Amino acid sequence: MLDVCLLGTGGMMPLPDRWLTSLLIRYNGRMLLVDCGEGTQIPLKMCGWGFKNIDAVLFTHYHADHVAGLPGFLLTLGNSGREDPLTLIGPPGLRLVVEGLLVISPQLPFDIKLLELPENQPSEIEAGDFSIRSLPVDHWVPCLAYGFEVKRQGRFDSEKAIRLDIPVSFWKRLQKGEILEYDGRTIKPEMVLGQPRKGIKVCYCTDSRPVEELADLIKEADLFICEGMYGDNGDLDKARQKKHMLFSEAAGLAKSGNAKELWLTHFSPALEKPEEYIYSASSVFKNSVAGKDLMVRNIKFENEE
Amino acid sequence: MLDVCLLGTGGMMPLPDRWLTSLLIRYNGRMLLVDCGEGTQIPLKMCGWGFKNIDAVLFTHYHADHVAGLPGFLLTLGNSGREDPLTLIGPPGLRLVVEGLLVISPQLPFDIKLLELPENQPSEIEAGDFSIRSLPVDHWVPCLAYGFEVKRQGRFDSEKAIRLDIPVSFWKRLQKGEILEYDGRTIKPEMVLGQPRKGIKVCYCTDSRPVEELADLIKEADLFICEGMYGDNGDLDKARQKKHMLFSEAAGLAKSGNAKELWLTHFSPALEKPEEYIYSASSVFKNSVAGKDLMVRNIKFENEE
Repeated sequence: MLDVCLLGTGGMMPLPDRWLTSLLIRYNGRMLLVDCGEGTQIPLKMCGWGFKNIDAVLFTHYHADHVAGLPGFLLTLGNSGREDPLTLIGPPGLRLVVEGLLVISPQLPFDIKLLELPENQPSEIEAGDFSIRSLPVDHWVPCLAYGFEVKRQGRFDSEKAIRLDIPVSFWKRLQKGEILEYDGRTIKPEMVLGQPRKGIKVCYCTDSRPVEELADLIKEADLFICEGMYGDNGDLDKARQKKHMLFSEAAGLAKSGNAKELWLTHFSPALEKPEEYIYSASSVFKNSVAGKDLMVRNIKFENEE
Repeated sequence: MLDVCLLGTGGMMPLPDRWLTSLLIRYNGRMLLVDCGEGTQIPLKMCGWGFKNIDAVLFTHYHADHVAGLPGFLLTLGNSGREDPLTLIGPPGLRLVVEGLLVISPQLPFDIKLLELPENQPSEIEAGDFSIRSLPVDHWVPCLAYGFEVKRQGRFDSEKAIRLDIPVSFWKRLQKGEILEYDGRTIKPEMVLGQPRKGIKVCYCTDSRPVEELADLIKEADLFICEGMYGDNGDLDKARQKKHMLFSEAAGLAKSGNAKELWLTHFSPALEKPEEYIYSASSVFKNSVAGKDLMVRNIKFENEE
């Protein structure tokens, strides 16, 4: 099971009743944080999943509403007893931004590793159990959309293991992917595992105009979290000018990628009640939801008990 | 009348129910902001006094909980239509910190002026109607306490003005401090104004150990806003070690300076209900109050209607 918590749903600036857009993803006790604007550490605390097990923070881009919370987050992480290194990931410019911001949090009890992803082409990296794909999107500055996937291996075929005379004591290790030597033979996991099964996929895109390549990134995603700066279709000119999306455009993307569900986020501060415009998304893509701060979803594998 | 709003009362990190310590002071429609930690722009918005008329932001020191909100504040100020320059004031290091943080808010529609105050000696500057005194205090990094005073000229003596044959149409200008030429004579305000009257004085000190010189800074202050990181006198060792104060130490300062009232702030995140410890301050200095986020006080001049 993979858990997501949409920590905030605001764009541009934090508001008294709306945190800035940020996503926390948890699998097997380990977490990734995506974007960290001013105040993000507050809903992170409210969410209750703790700080210590966050392995990496990913940034879509370096506008202040997506990164200004980094120094405070790092200090709070340090105060939580963190000693393991933390990885920061984002488009080019990361080093410059982190060096600038660290002027106010210079002494941390853990190391920071930086990973800059290409700004003009897709990439794929592994981070613990997560496979992360990045895709350049269309904003004022280099900006990436992300796809997070937890892959799932094939089912363990115990009858085959018995037929191959593999002792039961080895089964768990094979399930975990280990290659074993036994009785003069090399035993590989694929000998006792079926075809890989469908994993869990969550995608996240903000801030951007719609980009055709997103359809592939979000293909069959269990959940697509996408900016919807404006609810009203009449705001198309403004959306184009500011390089943001309408609800209906985000819904068009969800449909083109055949995602299972769309959560809208990164609302304009002027959009006081995003849910009042949800029809403009759901008329294009039925499973559209106006995001709310601290909204949680537990996503199971197919047929997971 | 001078108005103060204590925007937040937290130390170290913003919490779900407590903003970081910051002070907004307003006189004659113009404002000063003192400290700007992560999230400060949120209670600033809640306070309702607007952003546009803030002339300067003062920093006590550059730990993240006092300055990390600067980039977001500047962007929000820019979005509010601000075009006049903004002055940033603080101990040495200001330029380095501002240059670091501006990496995420590089384009602002107004100029920023920097004023670094001495870290080892008191200073006095004028900012609009405010006289601001700074005093070096005792923390891990250069840190300043501030005294804000609005001075009040003497009462206009209309009988004297009539005796001196000054036309009534000139009175307002003399009251405002103008020197006039009339009928071959030079007429100065002091010719028709009585002795300067008592002004309004508000002082602010965080983060620091108690410092003897504070007694003079806060002398007869209408309001002394002071850190009280720990309520329990049993935490003295911790307070010494972390270079913060106990409630009772802040109260000792208020007493030594004969302040009228003490507001405690900058509470440790572990101090969930500061008001439960208020006795340890009020037993030393009667008019001690445990600060609350967004607490407002309107302070009048003596005999002001």
